[in-house]
Amino acid sequence: MSTAKTARAVGDTAMPDGFSFAVEAVDGRARAGQLLTPHGEVETPCFMPVGTKATVKALAPRLLEELGARILLANAYHLFFRPGTEIVAAHGGLHRFMGWPGPILTDSGGFQVFSLGDTRVLRDDGVEFASVYDGSRHVFTPQRAMAIQQDLGADIVMCFDECAPGTLTRECIAAAVERTTRWAAACKEAHGRRDQLLVGIVQGGVDEELRRRSAAELLDIGFAAYAIGGLSVGERGEEMLATVALLDELLPAGKLRYFMGIGDPLGIVDVVGRGVDVFDCVLPTRLARTGTAFTADGRLNLRNAAFAADMRPLDSECDCYCCRHFTRAYLRHLVNQKEMLAAELLSLHNLRVLVRLAGAARASIKAGRFDAFAEDIHVRFAAGGQ
Amino acid sequence: MSTAKTARAVGDTAMPDGFSFAVEAVDGRARAGQLLTPHGEVETPCFMPVGTKATVKALAPRLLEELGARILLANAYHLFFRPGTEIVAAHGGLHRFMGWPGPILTDSGGFQVFSLGDTRVLRDDGVEFASVYDGSRHVFTPQRAMAIQQDLGADIVMCFDECAPGTLTRECIAAAVERTTRWAAACKEAHGRRDQLLVGIVQGGVDEELRRRSAAELLDIGFAAYAIGGLSVGERGEEMLATVALLDELLPAGKLRYFMGIGDPLGIVDVVGRGVDVFDCVLPTRLARTGTAFTADGRLNLRNAAFAADMRPLDSECDCYCCRHFTRAYLRHLVNQKEMLAAELLSLHNLRVLVRLAGAARASIKAGRFDAFAEDIHVRFAAGGQ
Repeated sequence: MSTAKTARAVGDTAMPDGFSFAVEAVDGRARAGQLLTPHGEVETPCFMPVGTKATVKALAPRLLEELGARILLANAYHLFFRPGTEIVAAHGGLHRFMGWPGPILTDSGGFQVFSLGDTRVLRDDGVEFASVYDGSRHVFTPQRAMAIQQDLGADIVMCFDECAPGTLTRECIAAAVERTTRWAAACKEAHGRRDQLLVGIVQGGVDEELRRRSAAELLDIGFAAYAIGGLSVGERGEEMLATVALLDELLPAGKLRYFMGIGDPLGIVDVVGRGVDVFDCVLPTRLARTGTAFTADGRLNLRNAAFAADMRPLDSECDCYCCRHFTRAYLRHLVNQKEMLAAELLSLHNLRVLVRLAGAARASIKAGRFDAFAEDIHVRFAAGGQ
Repeated sequence: MSTAKTARAVGDTAMPDGFSFAVEAVDGRARAGQLLTPHGEVETPCFMPVGTKATVKALAPRLLEELGARILLANAYHLFFRPGTEIVAAHGGLHRFMGWPGPILTDSGGFQVFSLGDTRVLRDDGVEFASVYDGSRHVFTPQRAMAIQQDLGADIVMCFDECAPGTLTRECIAAAVERTTRWAAACKEAHGRRDQLLVGIVQGGVDEELRRRSAAELLDIGFAAYAIGGLSVGERGEEMLATVALLDELLPAGKLRYFMGIGDPLGIVDVVGRGVDVFDCVLPTRLARTGTAFTADGRLNLRNAAFAADMRPLDSECDCYCCRHFTRAYLRHLVNQKEMLAAELLSLHNLRVLVRLAGAARASIKAGRFDAFAEDIHVRFAAGGQ
């Protein structure tokens, strides 16, 4: 599938055709906004479920629609190898391949190239690495990452970056910032689909100077939206939040901000309170597959014998299909018997909890009572023991 | 949970309260009927999906409703051990435990006692065996099997029997017939719930004299419905069909007939053509979990590389959610990546195929053209190579 090459100029930060983003309300640092894409509207703050291999594990698209998901993620690295970009492109792109009519975001594969396998070789123009599927060797460059994502056809695509955790040495993180900037410029140069929003990713670990440098360099190149990468990967919580707060000051107020990889309710509330609009994580669906459920008061591990004869729903405040029809005792039975229905029902529930949480955060921001909302969530989770 | 003991007299074959069965049309030996239960109506011929552990694997009850399932199976042996009969009874029975509002049938556990584990000891009053879950030793008797099934609370319950495949020696099968008769009398004596239909099970392998003996003895005891057990367990197809045809002559024309364990489209058409009303099997959902789909023209194994870029639905004649939204290429991707959504979508599709098949058989019987219908199914499957 060939795609038109009409690269945008350095410094151009206009939204592409069919996109817009507007901040509708601000409360402290928290923002309520609206993102328009060619495949529909997303009200922010918004949690984005992760469908790495073009499926949110265990959940059919219609269930995702039902639980209120508005935008999904998929992953360029995995789809490049399986089923192969050309198979997705032959369907006309990811929307039709995975049967999801709403907006989709693809991650570039940068994170996977660096985190999967241990045989990568850094090159000036990109990274050589071994496929996690069959060990075959490949090179991803910014140009390659853009071509793959253009063929996959998501609404929102990510720059090819190097995710450097704050736990690395400052030299390593600085080098990752340098590469990320260079590659971001190359991605912008290479990206040509006018119906895709290309997002720049700020790196720099939890080092204030490196974060300032990374943000400034990306702002110089100019993107229509910015992501915060390299957090929630092992650093201390207070360092993470200080870094998000710093970026709230550095990133343009009118542009969409995406925190890459946060999915626990407390963390979501904390980053929304520091100016983040959209966020994603595998946590809710991964926890579901181990028998753990989010509730209004913390997490429940259904393997616990205490639930063997518990006739209550998972969460009496939840309106999801799982909570309206099944008891904790039944769900525990499914989990213990390794029945697939357990993963389906708990995934649906956990995602619904995060969708409702984001919706409640939005309502509180618009009502000017976000601080009270965030405090309430913290108190509940402290009482529930997390 | 205590249940009233109002055992019925030998020879009484009346339907219990809230039940009725009527044959509405006959075409050759094939029958179209209507079964009423306290939890709803079942039009026959009818395929009953199997939910051994109180869940049809991978499918939430609402999806089963949507695909047209009208009655589900569950298994007394498995539920006795996990989660334990008392947990199900505390929910008020299986319907509320598993969130299925329609009719439910429980198998007695006889088949499992004989087929799982190899440490069983036959006793006059029942079978001593080791639990497949933890090796603990237990005794199932007709009385115990009735008590468990009464507490589980299905609409239709099965006598505790010994399933003797036609591949055993005649002596073994004859002994199993003797025990099955004795236990059937004990089950009828012990069963007291007037809101449950107790079904007698005919055994006898593929031996005409033993089948006649078993049928005659069960008819003497008297049941309101009869099952054909001990077939589809290794005997030759023509022997199986001859045995079903024999039982069509022996069993009362006005009573429901249940063939235990048949789920391939050809086999279903063949037994319906010999007077069977309802039937069950794990095959459609088990095949789904290995990536195999029923279609109008035979089976497809989606692991086959031929489907890698196949943009067609599984079955262009199918109206299920899977066929309306996804390509074979996408389904193959899900199967190869071991994504749970593959099992969900293929289970839904395979069950929908059997539900539609049974519905088409019913329509053809009512229209007096069952033979042409059965011939068409045979020709299609022969062409499809399965």
